[in-house]
Amino acid sequence: MTEPCELCASPGGDVVWRDGFCRIVLVDDPDYPGFCRVVLDRHVREMTDLAPADRARLMGAVFATEAVLRDMLGPHKINLASLGNAVPHVHWHVIPRHRDDRHFPKPIWAEPSRPRSAPRATPDRRALAAALEARLA
Amino acid sequence: MTEPCELCASPGGDVVWRDGFCRIVLVDDPDYPGFCRVVLDRHVREMTDLAPADRARLMGAVFATEAVLRDMLGPHKINLASLGNAVPHVHWHVIPRHRDDRHFPKPIWAEPSRPRSAPRATPDRRALAAALEARLA
Repeated sequence: MTEPCELCASPGGDVVWRDGFCRIVLVDDPDYPGFCRVVLDRHVREMTDLAPADRARLMGAVFATEAVLRDMLGPHKINLASLGNAVPHVHWHVIPRHRDDRHFPKPIWAEPSRPRSAPRATPDRRALAAALEARLA
Repeated sequence: MTEPCELCASPGGDVVWRDGFCRIVLVDDPDYPGFCRVVLDRHVREMTDLAPADRARLMGAVFATEAVLRDMLGPHKINLASLGNAVPHVHWHVIPRHRDDRHFPKPIWAEPSRPRSAPRATPDRRALAAALEARLA
């Protein structure tokens, strides 16, 4: 590791849950309220660089995040992605999607489908943190 | 289910492995040789609509695919994604990425970064199928 890694140096968002293995951060994206990332605390490049039990533990946090966002926001679809081309430190995007959001039905990394999303409620930060804790404790 | 689902109606690619629970298909994308999808055989919308044991089983196939593609192609990074906005039937994209590929460092759904990827070898279909079988048997 010679390049500085931004997910080693900083949380990568507003931390709403953590357990010393991974953290769940709320992403500040006005088009995607509730967009969370699940970030492994350790610097590991690929999921298959983790032991199987650690892969399962991390996916448990990803699926808990998906479940909480479905409960709180009722999205049309959830998008999950582990990309890491720019920041090769394992992190999962958990993105609630709505039919009228800025890129639907395309992935959020594509060209926008419409000029702006309809205004949409942001999940209450404290309720989100409590719901994650209830599922992951 | 009123709309026809293309992943219920067709395999969604060249099937290189299957076990009655899910299938692994090789995607025909000249920019991304080795791009595979892991498709659940049943029509299920979200990962959290599956029982935890089934989520783990499907992720086992996803991670086996990642491991095989890393072994065979040595990509710079693997991208994993379950999106399903257009086809809400659980399927995972497993995409080997290279620094000089068409979209790097952006996701493959973004605007291209360069006009065309450098020519790159496609994994041998029979060797890919055998390597998946060896990991998943």
